[in-house]
Amino acid sequence: MADYSGTAGFIVLNPWGQTVWDQIRGYLDDRFAETGVGNAYFPMLIPESLFEQEKNIIEGFDPEVAWVTHGGEEELAERLAIRPTSESIITDHMGRKVRSYRDLPLRYNQWCSVVRWEATETKPFLRTREFLWQEGHGAFPDEETAREDTHLRLEQYADLYEDVLALPAMTGRKPDHDKFPGAETTFTVETLMPDGRSIQGATPHYLGTKFAEEYDVTFTDENEQQRVAHTTSWGASWRTMGAVIMAHGDDQGLVLPPTIAPEQVAIVPIWTDEDKGEVLEYSEDLRAELEAAGVRVELDDRDHHSPGFKFNEWELKGVPLRAEVGSNEVADGTVRLVHRPDGEKVDVDRAAVAEAVAEELDAVYEKLYERAAERMDENVREADSRNEILGTIGRHGGYVRAGWCGDVDCEAEIKDQIAAEIVMVELDPDADPVSETCAVCGDSATETAYYAKTH
Amino acid sequence: MADYSGTAGFIVLNPWGQTVWDQIRGYLDDRFAETGVGNAYFPMLIPESLFEQEKNIIEGFDPEVAWVTHGGEEELAERLAIRPTSESIITDHMGRKVRSYRDLPLRYNQWCSVVRWEATETKPFLRTREFLWQEGHGAFPDEETAREDTHLRLEQYADLYEDVLALPAMTGRKPDHDKFPGAETTFTVETLMPDGRSIQGATPHYLGTKFAEEYDVTFTDENEQQRVAHTTSWGASWRTMGAVIMAHGDDQGLVLPPTIAPEQVAIVPIWTDEDKGEVLEYSEDLRAELEAAGVRVELDDRDHHSPGFKFNEWELKGVPLRAEVGSNEVADGTVRLVHRPDGEKVDVDRAAVAEAVAEELDAVYEKLYERAAERMDENVREADSRNEILGTIGRHGGYVRAGWCGDVDCEAEIKDQIAAEIVMVELDPDADPVSETCAVCGDSATETAYYAKTH
Repeated sequence: MADYSGTAGFIVLNPWGQTVWDQIRGYLDDRFAETGVGNAYFPMLIPESLFEQEKNIIEGFDPEVAWVTHGGEEELAERLAIRPTSESIITDHMGRKVRSYRDLPLRYNQWCSVVRWEATETKPFLRTREFLWQEGHGAFPDEETAREDTHLRLEQYADLYEDVLALPAMTGRKPDHDKFPGAETTFTVETLMPDGRSIQGATPHYLGTKFAEEYDVTFTDENEQQRVAHTTSWGASWRTMGAVIMAHGDDQGLVLPPTIAPEQVAIVPIWTDEDKGEVLEYSEDLRAELEAAGVRVELDDRDHHSPGFKFNEWELKGVPLRAEVGSNEVADGTVRLVHRPDGEKVDVDRAAVAEAVAEELDAVYEKLYERAAERMDENVREADSRNEILGTIGRHGGYVRAGWCGDVDCEAEIKDQIAAEIVMVELDPDADPVSETCAVCGDSATETAYYAKTH
Repeated sequence: MADYSGTAGFIVLNPWGQTVWDQIRGYLDDRFAETGVGNAYFPMLIPESLFEQEKNIIEGFDPEVAWVTHGGEEELAERLAIRPTSESIITDHMGRKVRSYRDLPLRYNQWCSVVRWEATETKPFLRTREFLWQEGHGAFPDEETAREDTHLRLEQYADLYEDVLALPAMTGRKPDHDKFPGAETTFTVETLMPDGRSIQGATPHYLGTKFAEEYDVTFTDENEQQRVAHTTSWGASWRTMGAVIMAHGDDQGLVLPPTIAPEQVAIVPIWTDEDKGEVLEYSEDLRAELEAAGVRVELDDRDHHSPGFKFNEWELKGVPLRAEVGSNEVADGTVRLVHRPDGEKVDVDRAAVAEAVAEELDAVYEKLYERAAERMDENVREADSRNEILGTIGRHGGYVRAGWCGDVDCEAEIKDQIAAEIVMVELDPDADPVSETCAVCGDSATETAYYAKTH
């Protein structure tokens, strides 16, 4: 889905990958639209002074920003940041848009690329200096409506994982020391990779009034009082695709859930010189019928490649179902369907093929989901001591739930030893911790922390 | 559709504008897809050395580029250009992808933003330092197939104007001195604005082998010979939206063709305290039926605004049809439809409203198209002398067709006097010029030039 490019740290999203991304985008767009969010587009470059106002919000907020200093031959009077995220420019815009409580809630989503100048090694879709994402931004009249909307986004992200990416999702909050800079609460969707590490899948933030104060998003309420808005933001990037690749892929290449596969069925005809005509005709009829039924289907009728070559190629690309058509199928009025994840073969009746394909696509989805869910279920463990946390993660990977006092130093002890961290704490802030004491220091626990290694 | 932003020279595309852009994007995506082009995404930043290889292609190619010189706190070893266009990074990529004639044609399209550091005044959608566009790039085995594809893109752009934007399109070639740097031939779609100026609507380029040579796009042909590919590129930007705004808009605001309007019908109920219930029920039924028929429709049932206020607001936004529903309509079983461009009113039968709305939307499209086509027809004139060119454009605006010797100095004489230029020459390079001599210098004419002022 990606290629390395002529710019170090940047990748090319190829058409296959772009189509997967478009499916993810389509799903989120629909969900956002039905819950009041329209798309818009904001400037890619942000003047340093506007950008740095965020410094007033949180000390030491010093993101890795790529700076534009020259336009043409001239040095700019003020350098410009390529957006690493757009709270500054969008909240500033909201400040000019919002006058009255009637203007609220005001919500925008944009699909764009952002740049974060990280020096680490490039890993397609997981660590790239430029990445594609959506960033949603909202302004609300009060904390309650802002928090509600943030929870709604968290739910939509969890649904994306569960219903579209075939990945079970855990939802929680980031510990305070790992929140988005300036946020009151950062929520997260976490999912487990086969190597035992967690992936942070998407993050909605409740930002409180800090950004709105800094960028002057104020409004006149029903009682003619001036009030400051509460803002939110929420983002999901092409890491979602990185998660899919790692979670479902195997030694033969990609494995894509039918929900996002650019092609759901690849028809591979198997012919001899004698039966080529009828095999191709049968295949083409099949293709036309599936396409009419709304299936994304391709007939691979290339002359210069063998069926075996084609099998490999479609497996590599992750197409969930292969449909084989040879003289046997033509004679019997059947089609052989082969599941990508495990090679399971099902011979189905040609006459009822559209229903059969829909069923088998669902079956492939379930297969992928179940495998990932089993992995997740088996890999959430509990631990009562520092050594147990270290040992459990060291042996099994996965998540370890443990009581936590809230002190970043206790996480540091784990992090220093095995590079695992608290990826989230329990979603409900009022829930009783899993144990009464912090597993690391033994002080009173305030939260249930989930320790894991991460990507 | 746009707002000014916190970054000088950059605009915000608001949700209404974004939805119009998405319609344009959807149309082009479908056309590109059915003619072999998939979408992809390439790095936004291009190393100077890679970017500057283009200097070998054409002397003095010195675009207004925004340069990234710092990543985080560090100065970069090599500065990076924000793409002003992506021939360099994409042709370089093609060079690594193409091995055999079987890999050709290779075509990519990307939707992205580009930055061109122009110092002129900002004009939304026409002159902005960052703009949204699509850029297509193709590699072909020979000149013939490359040129054919370029003509296909030209046709698709002309169709976009004719069939989607309600604007008649003239197609031609750019004069040599105004080609895309490095191109063999630059084609253009031109359309006329009410102020008598031409807008360059979209441009496909046949690039010959220069880019392929520079970035090493070579392949082994059927006879095992190494050959250099021929490349093309083609681009359309949000100028398309600028053209729509200027061409169709009026003193009441935007006028959008139904093809691209985010909402095609705005239902404005007109109620009194007594009949509010039944008027709203009737309106909601109407909305549901139109939506089911695939019409983009909104019911404006806001309590705190008067019908007159709503009329104005929907006019301002350019919605092509307003549907009025009051107690008369409820009693008579009708709906009053009002055309945005001219206020024409049509009372239609509620029972057959879906068909009627479809017809009236077509009628609005025709109205917009006809008005623009008439303007275009009336404003292509001929001239035989320098003074006649100057006088005709000075008096009427529009286009002047005239014989041209091909010398840029002859254009310069016109440009210096009234800032009109040759926006295109006749599409067919073998067509006889409109006159035997150049209208400016009197030498032998080789082309028919179209002089016009431009946006």
